[in-house]
Amino acid sequence: MAVQLALGPRVRKSPFFSATLRDGLKAASVYNHMYMPVSFGDPIGEYERLISGVSMWDVSVERQVSLKGPDSLALAKLLTGRNLDTLSIGKGKYAPLCDYHGRLINDPVLLQIDDEEIWLSIADSDIVLWARGIAGAQALDVDITEPDVSPLAVQGPKAEAVLVDLFGRWISELKHFDFRQTMLGSIPVIVARSGWSKQGGYEIYLMDSAYGTDLWDHVKEAGAPYEIRPGTPNYIERLESGLLSYGADTDAESNPFELGLDRFIDLEQSVDFIGKQALSRIRDQGVSRLFKGVFLDGPKLTTINEERWLITHRGRVVGYVSAAAFSPRLESNIAVGMIATDVVQSGESFEVKCEDCVRSGIAVDLPLL
Amino acid sequence: MAVQLALGPRVRKSPFFSATLRDGLKAASVYNHMYMPVSFGDPIGEYERLISGVSMWDVSVERQVSLKGPDSLALAKLLTGRNLDTLSIGKGKYAPLCDYHGRLINDPVLLQIDDEEIWLSIADSDIVLWARGIAGAQALDVDITEPDVSPLAVQGPKAEAVLVDLFGRWISELKHFDFRQTMLGSIPVIVARSGWSKQGGYEIYLMDSAYGTDLWDHVKEAGAPYEIRPGTPNYIERLESGLLSYGADTDAESNPFELGLDRFIDLEQSVDFIGKQALSRIRDQGVSRLFKGVFLDGPKLTTINEERWLITHRGRVVGYVSAAAFSPRLESNIAVGMIATDVVQSGESFEVKCEDCVRSGIAVDLPLL
Repeated sequence: MAVQLALGPRVRKSPFFSATLRDGLKAASVYNHMYMPVSFGDPIGEYERLISGVSMWDVSVERQVSLKGPDSLALAKLLTGRNLDTLSIGKGKYAPLCDYHGRLINDPVLLQIDDEEIWLSIADSDIVLWARGIAGAQALDVDITEPDVSPLAVQGPKAEAVLVDLFGRWISELKHFDFRQTMLGSIPVIVARSGWSKQGGYEIYLMDSAYGTDLWDHVKEAGAPYEIRPGTPNYIERLESGLLSYGADTDAESNPFELGLDRFIDLEQSVDFIGKQALSRIRDQGVSRLFKGVFLDGPKLTTINEERWLITHRGRVVGYVSAAAFSPRLESNIAVGMIATDVVQSGESFEVKCEDCVRSGIAVDLPLL
Repeated sequence: MAVQLALGPRVRKSPFFSATLRDGLKAASVYNHMYMPVSFGDPIGEYERLISGVSMWDVSVERQVSLKGPDSLALAKLLTGRNLDTLSIGKGKYAPLCDYHGRLINDPVLLQIDDEEIWLSIADSDIVLWARGIAGAQALDVDITEPDVSPLAVQGPKAEAVLVDLFGRWISELKHFDFRQTMLGSIPVIVARSGWSKQGGYEIYLMDSAYGTDLWDHVKEAGAPYEIRPGTPNYIERLESGLLSYGADTDAESNPFELGLDRFIDLEQSVDFIGKQALSRIRDQGVSRLFKGVFLDGPKLTTINEERWLITHRGRVVGYVSAAAFSPRLESNIAVGMIATDVVQSGESFEVKCEDCVRSGIAVDLPLL
């Protein structure tokens, strides 16, 4: 049954909102207290353009949390287990954040903007509150705000050509996660080689929301020769690529070792970051479940899962599938989920309780493609 | 243009979700990472039942943050400027939460559940993160979780009769904000005399989500003689009654004195709660804007505002209207908003820029009714 998304003053509109509506937005959710486009009504086309062409996404919901002031780096080092010793201006780093119990509370990309300014480009939780709480309790000299910054992603193998046409040849030199501040005509932006897909691409961080429709239309026009169309972060491609969706794949207790984020947590560094003690304990004890890819048998999935699907093995509940879809490239039903370590290690198949069926599944390493 | 609400595994479903769908849910939003019913498609009937009959609302999005352990009260006292000296088991208190700069970050009802357990029944921000940050930084001995608790509101002048039929005569003795743990058959609940309207009523906190449809149907059946129907927190009634909507009426800088919450902030108590220094400074300096009711002229408003409307006075931007609607009881367009103190005190009218018009407005005290 279709439910309409209620629009009202409590939830924020992206600066690209009216352009996405005009260009055929069909379904949306809410993320970081802002409407998030989820579908333009052409799921197969949206997937294919991401894989073999170019797609443009309003990802303004990736809000920026700015840490600014003399203690900005000290606060960032407290907040993440990622080693930040090699941080430099113009380079981004994926930086999981944990609480004092080692539970993952967000997994932003961290960008050093200036000597005393760092941004966290966040997933869906109120990190501005978390950072203010920590900074306040520690009496750090840092100002924490959400600046007027809204990313627009251009993703797919032809994204580079679109951005070269828009910004010039330096675009091709930009390394993964590197970024640069620049102007597009009179529009102030940061351009980063990043984005929530493995098909290559860029994120253009709009730094003045008054130019939302202008920037959208510039990208649309530059992309026209490459048949660009509006899309959204893609449900199928992210499963194939094994990209973590914080809040969907994680639950209230998930820790980075369960999620396979070990290489982003440096327990040997001298910094006493939040969660370090708990994470050391978890590492020593080992984890009881793992985030894995899943191949699911049975007929082709024609819709995405609305809820988590429970996994059972020999009559015991051993985890959940958090997202599932049919992969055209793998010609198989695929999924990701959290599964008991012993079941993963056994290599045995298990049962997945879908909305209207039970399917057999098997755990495999991520990424699937 | 209607946009469909995307359903997926990232946003949580209320335990009453399938019952609300079955009973005609038409539009929803997202609040505290959970779908929130916003309309059953009969705005006039929903308003009238709340004013003169009885209405039932799925308000599971009012999530509970449980503080449990020896330091639960110490943490609660750190978190709110409300004086908690008279707190006792079975009594709720409205308890605004501020950050270290005195900015309002949530306005929960605080419930003392047991000697070492306190719940915060929260508005839309991640207070579980905030509380964990503070408790961790202060090394307090308290466990902070979101328990499986989901409120169902029964509101309107006939709500008492419905609940007496369901629970017995003690319901009538319950004072405002008092609550009691009990069972409805085999369903564990807490019943509180509370709710986000001024029409009287109760909130039944379901304590086991497996019974969502059961509880919904029990209330529906008991309410049938009183012509109960499903509804939602009411846009018009809350304006008439001057109820604050955190996130809609507030912005990133709002403080409790601007919002008229002075009586819930005790700066004279000995507790050094978070934000006390900043709030003392704000009180001494006075505030530059105030949250007020507004009467708006012009034709009857036929829809609610989708966005904030800017207020100008003699060519200067002096605030915003956060919510507006036509009040059948006042036979006028009414609104609430934040307005520069000098404009409020001048008593002069101002201009409000609506989506498709400019209207003249005048500030008045809340509540309007």
